[in-house]
Amino acid sequence: MARSQLVTLLTDFGSRDGYVGAVKGAILSVCPRAQIIDISHDVPAHDILAGALGLSAAAPCFPPDTLHVVIIDPTVGTDRKILVGRFGRHVYLFPDNGVITFIVDRFPAESLNVVLPPAPVVGRPGSMTFHGRDVFAPIAGRILLGQDIRKFGPQPASYTLLDIPAPTQDETRITGQVIHVDRFGNLVTNIPAAAVMQKWPNVEAVRATCAGRDAGRFAATYAFVAEAAPLVLFDSSGRVELAVNRGRACDSLAADVGAPVILRAG
Amino acid sequence: MARSQLVTLLTDFGSRDGYVGAVKGAILSVCPRAQIIDISHDVPAHDILAGALGLSAAAPCFPPDTLHVVIIDPTVGTDRKILVGRFGRHVYLFPDNGVITFIVDRFPAESLNVVLPPAPVVGRPGSMTFHGRDVFAPIAGRILLGQDIRKFGPQPASYTLLDIPAPTQDETRITGQVIHVDRFGNLVTNIPAAAVMQKWPNVEAVRATCAGRDAGRFAATYAFVAEAAPLVLFDSSGRVELAVNRGRACDSLAADVGAPVILRAG
Amino acid sequence: MARSQLVTLLTDFGSRDGYVGAVKGAILSVCPRAQIIDISHDVPAHDILAGALGLSAAAPCFPPDTLHVVIIDPTVGTDRKILVGRFGRHVYLFPDNGVITFIVDRFPAESLNVVLPPAPVVGRPGSMTFHGRDVFAPIAGRILLGQDIRKFGPQPASYTLLDIPAPTQDETRITGQVIHVDRFGNLVTNIPAAAVMQKWPNVEAVRATCAGRDAGRFAATYAFVAEAAPLVLFDSSGRVELAVNRGRACDSLAADVGAPVILRAG
Repeated sequence: MARSQLVTLLTDFGSRDGYVGAVKGAILSVCPRAQIIDISHDVPAHDILAGALGLSAAAPCFPPDTLHVVIIDPTVGTDRKILVGRFGRHVYLFPDNGVITFIVDRFPAESLNVVLPPAPVVGRPGSMTFHGRDVFAPIAGRILLGQDIRKFGPQPASYTLLDIPAPTQDETRITGQVIHVDRFGNLVTNIPAAAVMQKWPNVEAVRATCAGRDAGRFAATYAFVAEAAPLVLFDSSGRVELAVNRGRACDSLAADVGAPVILRAG
Repeated sequence: MARSQLVTLLTDFGSRDGYVGAVKGAILSVCPRAQIIDISHDVPAHDILAGALGLSAAAPCFPPDTLHVVIIDPTVGTDRKILVGRFGRHVYLFPDNGVITFIVDRFPAESLNVVLPPAPVVGRPGSMTFHGRDVFAPIAGRILLGQDIRKFGPQPASYTLLDIPAPTQDETRITGQVIHVDRFGNLVTNIPAAAVMQKWPNVEAVRATCAGRDAGRFAATYAFVAEAAPLVLFDSSGRVELAVNRGRACDSLAADVGAPVILRAG
Repeated sequence: MARSQLVTLLTDFGSRDGYVGAVKGAILSVCPRAQIIDISHDVPAHDILAGALGLSAAAPCFPPDTLHVVIIDPTVGTDRKILVGRFGRHVYLFPDNGVITFIVDRFPAESLNVVLPPAPVVGRPGSMTFHGRDVFAPIAGRILLGQDIRKFGPQPASYTLLDIPAPTQDETRITGQVIHVDRFGNLVTNIPAAAVMQKWPNVEAVRATCAGRDAGRFAATYAFVAEAAPLVLFDSSGRVELAVNRGRACDSLAADVGAPVILRAG
């Protein structure tokens, strides 16, 4: 880590208040040369699954040794652990609530340690509710300065992963569900592109339904169907996605996270 | 371009997902010293006109040789072209859909070339739908590293400009329309300040209507009229703007993009 | 200031338009080595109090000599003053409208001067309405280049502070009000944590009401009460805050800025 001072931030702090600025300032106060890159601060409040998806979409694109700091932390201040680990080429500092799930899927942990922060100052307001500023940021600064991430604390006996429902298959169908609605209203599902390609080498023969409604057929990109028409595609993270060209599939299909999605030939 | 590593991003990716982070990571993976500046990621989805206005408001303010990357690209993955050009002191990388319109108005192209990206990896999910990460970002990184922008591909036979309706004049009136509603609810019109000043050297004699409603008279700035009162002014990009002091003109005048605006003396 | 090129931005410009990008470009055009950090651009339009709270939450976390530029400026273009001052370890450039109130509370002014900008170019559109780009940014650039902030203009005879209502106490109660609703729907009050701790050494005995509704009891952090249950806590800036675990107190308590908050033992 000695040479990279690149650190990304992914939080659900929103952009209206001073919270994100406080975290950035606290990092820079420890490591003034930190180069801070925002991944997102508009993850829906307390939405660990959305944060996990955003993290896995963005983090692996960064240069080796980038530090990724994730602060989506609805149980801040409880005895939930804060973890630091190296997964593949990157270092992640995150609350132990499953936000690391899709990173673990692709990059096995090379190291993982509990962060034991300095004892909190008794009676200092906020030290229980703003670990972003008071724990994550100073720890991040010390990592950027080169501190060995394996020395922050012991290895955890276990750590939390999200329980994402797996899609099911029978002879004629793959059945999954919507796990995310993105900014464009696209519906991201839990169905891996690989499973579809294995089952149906010719995906053009496949049609989709979502919560009982026709969700169209596979197309390589949005504008290959008529405006306002639905389509199915492999998204940029390797999942099946339902979309509407220049429209919002979540509205057209009246679907949200949890809606059932069925793919079948015919 | 050798010495500047300044690159701006203007997209409609929103700030909730990992898309913007993926683009930033992919740029930094090619050019780790890139200095990435966000112009906006909250351009309304697929809104090329809004993006074109945001680009022309912000881009010319940057230092010479800044690279501006624009990814508002509803036809991503089709045969629409990706272009790179030098307009005035800056370099622009953008989809050929008219988003460059207001830059071209002010800065003639010194060079313009089609970007021929490396052949896509067959079967790699996402290569058709996320050119921001898979094409724009690596090309941007190579430009920042000093690659000659005239060598990415051939000059295009033509390129796309938005068809913005021109205002009309008769003896007593200038008639235009609303082309943008900004964050404050201000209504930006297609009427150039210069046309008004030429027709009426004394703008204080001019009054405006918008969709038939009284939109007030010219004032030099918002707080020169009473709170909640309407006013007309020359905006910071040289267009006529309708506003309401500490209010939202789009609400007070019940007007949106396309609403007719009439200026007349009296 | 010679060595720090760190500058933060706090505005109500939103993130949809090109306004923020224009300010960043104009700063970098004067000081290309500026390191620009966003605090927030989503302060509600014209909301000086929200801006003042965001500034005081974030700015003091930054390294010494950071320059903080605040552009929440509903009376832009009038004779309201623009001020530059050193408060504690930091430099602030801001419109004289009270946005500095909570910084002054904690850090007495070491210097304070009126910024006399270069005379505006007569007839240049926008010079009256976009001081962010045309005045604040170039002045910020010159400060980052090392210009002495005491030489921009005279000391002001006085400057504006917000008139925040003070909480009141009687034998059994502290009565205050909501002064801010944050991104999570938490209700920030004007009641200082210190006043509560002084009156009731055992805060666990205290209960809160907000606009007549039960707002719960003190807890050290959100997840120490049941999901959807209300709680009272000391927020990260030392104020009393009303919250709902994984919920939105502003909705549960149907409360907004101005709602009365009463703390009492029992």
